[in-house]
Amino acid sequence: MKRLLVVSAHAADFVWRAGGAIALTVAQGGKALVVALSYGERGESGELWKEPGQTLERVKAIRQEEASRAAAILGAEFVPLDLGDYPLRVEEKALGRLVEVLVDFAPDVLMTHTPKDPFNPDHPVAYEATELARQLASGAGVASAFKTIRPPEFLLFEPHQPELCGFVPNLFLDITPVWEKKLKAMEVFASQAYLRRYYAERAEHRANHARRISGLKDIEKAEAFQRVLPQVVRSL
Amino acid sequence: MKRLLVVSAHAADFVWRAGGAIALTVAQGGKALVVALSYGERGESGELWKEPGQTLERVKAIRQEEASRAAAILGAEFVPLDLGDYPLRVEEKALGRLVEVLVDFAPDVLMTHTPKDPFNPDHPVAYEATELARQLASGAGVASAFKTIRPPEFLLFEPHQPELCGFVPNLFLDITPVWEKKLKAMEVFASQAYLRRYYAERAEHRANHARRISGLKDIEKAEAFQRVLPQVVRSL
Amino acid sequence: MKRLLVVSAHAADFVWRAGGAIALTVAQGGKALVVALSYGERGESGELWKEPGQTLERVKAIRQEEASRAAAILGAEFVPLDLGDYPLRVEEKALGRLVEVLVDFAPDVLMTHTPKDPFNPDHPVAYEATELARQLASGAGVASAFKTIRPPEFLLFEPHQPELCGFVPNLFLDITPVWEKKLKAMEVFASQAYLRRYYAERAEHRANHARRISGLKDIEKAEAFQRVLPQVVRSL
Amino acid sequence: MKRLLVVSAHAADFVWRAGGAIALTVAQGGKALVVALSYGERGESGELWKEPGQTLERVKAIRQEEASRAAAILGAEFVPLDLGDYPLRVEEKALGRLVEVLVDFAPDVLMTHTPKDPFNPDHPVAYEATELARQLASGAGVASAFKTIRPPEFLLFEPHQPELCGFVPNLFLDITPVWEKKLKAMEVFASQAYLRRYYAERAEHRANHARRISGLKDIEKAEAFQRVLPQVVRSL
Amino acid sequence: MKRLLVVSAHAADFVWRAGGAIALTVAQGGKALVVALSYGERGESGELWKEPGQTLERVKAIRQEEASRAAAILGAEFVPLDLGDYPLRVEEKALGRLVEVLVDFAPDVLMTHTPKDPFNPDHPVAYEATELARQLASGAGVASAFKTIRPPEFLLFEPHQPELCGFVPNLFLDITPVWEKKLKAMEVFASQAYLRRYYAERAEHRANHARRISGLKDIEKAEAFQRVLPQVVRSL
Amino acid sequence: MKRLLVVSAHAADFVWRAGGAIALTVAQGGKALVVALSYGERGESGELWKEPGQTLERVKAIRQEEASRAAAILGAEFVPLDLGDYPLRVEEKALGRLVEVLVDFAPDVLMTHTPKDPFNPDHPVAYEATELARQLASGAGVASAFKTIRPPEFLLFEPHQPELCGFVPNLFLDITPVWEKKLKAMEVFASQAYLRRYYAERAEHRANHARRISGLKDIEKAEAFQRVLPQVVRSL
Repeated sequence: MKRLLVVSAHAADFVWRAGGAIALTVAQGGKALVVALSYGERGESGELWKEPGQTLERVKAIRQEEASRAAAILGAEFVPLDLGDYPLRVEEKALGRLVEVLVDFAPDVLMTHTPKDPFNPDHPVAYEATELARQLASGAGVASAFKTIRPPEFLLFEPHQPELCGFVPNLFLDITPVWEKKLKAMEVFASQAYLRRYYAERAEHRANHARRISGLKDIEKAEAFQRVLPQVVRSL
Repeated sequence: MKRLLVVSAHAADFVWRAGGAIALTVAQGGKALVVALSYGERGESGELWKEPGQTLERVKAIRQEEASRAAAILGAEFVPLDLGDYPLRVEEKALGRLVEVLVDFAPDVLMTHTPKDPFNPDHPVAYEATELARQLASGAGVASAFKTIRPPEFLLFEPHQPELCGFVPNLFLDITPVWEKKLKAMEVFASQAYLRRYYAERAEHRANHARRISGLKDIEKAEAFQRVLPQVVRSL
Repeated sequence: MKRLLVVSAHAADFVWRAGGAIALTVAQGGKALVVALSYGERGESGELWKEPGQTLERVKAIRQEEASRAAAILGAEFVPLDLGDYPLRVEEKALGRLVEVLVDFAPDVLMTHTPKDPFNPDHPVAYEATELARQLASGAGVASAFKTIRPPEFLLFEPHQPELCGFVPNLFLDITPVWEKKLKAMEVFASQAYLRRYYAERAEHRANHARRISGLKDIEKAEAFQRVLPQVVRSL
Repeated sequence: MKRLLVVSAHAADFVWRAGGAIALTVAQGGKALVVALSYGERGESGELWKEPGQTLERVKAIRQEEASRAAAILGAEFVPLDLGDYPLRVEEKALGRLVEVLVDFAPDVLMTHTPKDPFNPDHPVAYEATELARQLASGAGVASAFKTIRPPEFLLFEPHQPELCGFVPNLFLDITPVWEKKLKAMEVFASQAYLRRYYAERAEHRANHARRISGLKDIEKAEAFQRVLPQVVRSL
Repeated sequence: MKRLLVVSAHAADFVWRAGGAIALTVAQGGKALVVALSYGERGESGELWKEPGQTLERVKAIRQEEASRAAAILGAEFVPLDLGDYPLRVEEKALGRLVEVLVDFAPDVLMTHTPKDPFNPDHPVAYEATELARQLASGAGVASAFKTIRPPEFLLFEPHQPELCGFVPNLFLDITPVWEKKLKAMEVFASQAYLRRYYAERAEHRANHARRISGLKDIEKAEAFQRVLPQVVRSL
Repeated sequence: MKRLLVVSAHAADFVWRAGGAIALTVAQGGKALVVALSYGERGESGELWKEPGQTLERVKAIRQEEASRAAAILGAEFVPLDLGDYPLRVEEKALGRLVEVLVDFAPDVLMTHTPKDPFNPDHPVAYEATELARQLASGAGVASAFKTIRPPEFLLFEPHQPELCGFVPNLFLDITPVWEKKLKAMEVFASQAYLRRYYAERAEHRANHARRISGLKDIEKAEAFQRVLPQVVRSL
């Protein structure tokens, strides 16, 4: 029974990139929590702002509702930190909040964005905050003065232009059993039809890659991740 | 029940670097096969050549006997290809033989040296041959004209000067339960007391690293590996 | 009026990965030549070998016919070198032949596979041969004893698992105007329906990437390349 | 008619490293704007401070006058932000100002320093600010709540110790036609005779490199750049 | 007579990683100064906090006493900056203090942590501060408005998990003559028996590496460093 | 009294890139030996071939005479292996010859080309042969069946387009005292006036870099090298 924590720079990032991992973890009896650092109200809500008389409050409310609904479909809880976007900044207090969430939830697996992304100024900020919070929550591996948790596995999920973000996947997850759930969660974000199709096709491509790597012929949909730390195992 | 194939440039390499992985795999009900490309009769048998009247044949026979004995302690079969060392060369016929071994044994896990080693001219040659044999044995992931096996996991084991060989471990294996076996196998190579001590200490260091990464406090001995290909999994 | 030379390890590689570049170059008044180092008769013709009584000769003849037809649709000439595959080897004589082709055709642009590919043993061999032939054909940039050509631009085309091949695209080509031709050329390889779909979807993804990078909203299909040498230009 | 924006950490950086690009762009009918984040009044004005009774105000005034004059020779406008140097810091407000300049000028090409420079603490700061401003000004490639511009090409210009800065040029610009202008602009900075000679010689070396790469024998002076993002083109 | 400055993130780091270099420099007639940015009172003093009624003040006092004693054994002066840890932050004023120390002490050799460390959030912060202070203290290599020192050599010392920190040693120092001093200094930190043993074994391993690289058979203990800047020498 | 061995792919390479190191080593009482793998008779003797009725034999004789003369000016012995160029190949026998030279000369310092050079097919071949010979001559650091020498330092000298060859200098040698000798040796190759000027200017640039790194203000000419293996030292 795994516990999965996903840190998302904006309200919808987790769906495209980790929706399958969330749904699968839950389907296998685990628990998933999504923390969104911002609503993406400036950088990724252009469609909403086209509506006359639109307000910041309303944009955030819509994003909150959509993201919560998508998370619910996947089986996860959704916690927004509302730190603002474009640019996102994670100051000391917000970092402390993130550490708290980590210590309270004590995840087995922690996921976030890549440290580099030439097409999104907020994704590397989310990475930096998550990486720092991870270290503060788990300590340096030695006895410390504060409460620490068992160090979670640390994964990066797939960015939109992988090669330009330095993303080299070393973990493919078979999400075939929960594909319908991911698809439904993606459909919540009605205005982003393109991304729905893109990540649907990626799921097939990554499955193809996974089949060629493993020889497992029944993988139909997959998500790609980059594991940041070494794995520690008890059998090969 | 895993099948593990280790390709060793010289007769003793597999003991220091993968002895724990071999013994553990066997202890867990699996099967292990060691292929030694050479006996290391030129580059790593200096002690034996100090004996007056020593002959190449005798050096090889001693190395064969020792390596077989060490392999037996770990529970593995030992197959020497006797291709010569310093420099080792793997020509077309020998490559074909290696492909055959791969296809016949059909390993789940394949292990060998790093592609770079500024202190051993034969280790990169062993890597190149193993990498090519792996691809020829498993095909390009599409239907081919020849018999192919399910692609094995591909691991590099720890070289003597890791950083200079570009070795970045991403897999630590807990070998605590089989440590005594590895120690005994290392003792077979009586003249190489230094390496026995070195890898015994490394096993503790890697265990320390593994504990800090994972929080698993009962790991006392570990071996480090670098996984070359992405992992394909069905749950996180 | 550009001259484009594509070196393909197997008979069909050029279609999936450079079909758009070929068709576009020709459509813009240029000339394209495809050199296939092998027919891919062992590694990529598994379907053909399922036919009872199949012969090597027949497999090659079919591949030759298909590849020529696909090349013709794109507007290119097709020259097979028939060096064998799995493993492909380019010995001295074959290298000389490749140099001759380069000197005779004198391309403005030269394209081939990536230097690394963990899923195809022949692709790096094709790269090595092409890189060496390029240097021998163009000289070291100083006066030499042999006839040299003006150095062509050197591009790598997109491999099947880009990140694992170290492929980082730095050139996106808008192939919208010739998309129908690429599609038809891909349809020639009837048994490889999967690759047809895969590269059709990639063309859309790469177009999406290209739009985000450039702001050119009318790009619908694109191919990705990695330029190996610096560009020399006369205006920014 | 290209629009070129150069972000310079100190008042004179743009002359040595991008003077040719500026002059050429203007000579070809384009427009160039130089933003200097600081006057380099502390770190690069040592000569001026040797004068008895020198004041900060006067140093800045001299640097402003020289830089404006050099920019005028090249045909560019010069905008100083006066943020201080050694160390340079770009806080939120200054970043906002930089974004504004980007949005107002809407450059086709954007240039700045390398992200790494072990010999200048301010150059990486200038890179970080420019990279962030570029992303904020152009959006993430999707509809956003704020006004965005078409994404400019993004180039790094040549640092003083290229290899130690991780600079790998992938673009050589032939500046032969405007060489005299660059030379004159460099002469404005009378006290920095060494740099004038250094960059004059580099212009010849880079031209030599460019000739060897391209075969274009008439290139006599060149500047080297590193393109950060993929190029998007409509013909090879 | 060399002057060595070591910047340590926490109070004890310098002993494990640079104790030999300090003792040797002093033994050879040089002078060594250790600056500790924090006492490690939160992240590395867990044992002390187990005592009932423990206070922050007392923990710091104990760490101060131990670190001073260890430094004295090695022959170095110990200067704590008391900036706090987990997370360590080096704000403008503290940076200014570090620059002052550098300018006053004018070291020939400067040492600190690696820029990357996935197991310690404070080590990269120490690196960043030291790198920036180094540049501000030595200027850009040109005449500046402030007092500058001759640029010191810049070395990184060995982190606990070298490969995961991107540490590639290019300098091994023979510390055989001062080994007893390092051992005694390490014994000061009674509660950290594990690290004492770990770095004692590392000293032997690094000596083994050093012997294999150099052929100098009398090296029994060594420390590994990564030199960041090129060396400038007057004979090979 | 150092012994320096330089392995040069073609007859003149050593002069441009290591002439200062050779002359300085000799001036300081050391000994220098240059091994040229080929005469560069095809790739770098274009001027000579313009003479009507020119023959291969004569071209080689001229190159032999020039290179010997240049070596003599620098104070080195010149040993040609005459293996042919464009492409250079170092087969088993030639490799054995190179190992012999290494064992007989027993250099303290070994120098050759970079492993990568997109503008010269023979330079990487020279690197591979030298690297392999080095390892075979010095053994793996353990007792071996053959005579071994104490491992030399291993340096790469500066290629013509450093960044494109992956050359990152970490060693600058002050060659001011022997500059006149290097200049005279370069003048031997009358037809290559450009390279003479290029490397004369580089010597000043590298001196400028060296001054900025070290603060040693009297360095007027320098050569840049990349040290491949860690240094082993007995004081900092």
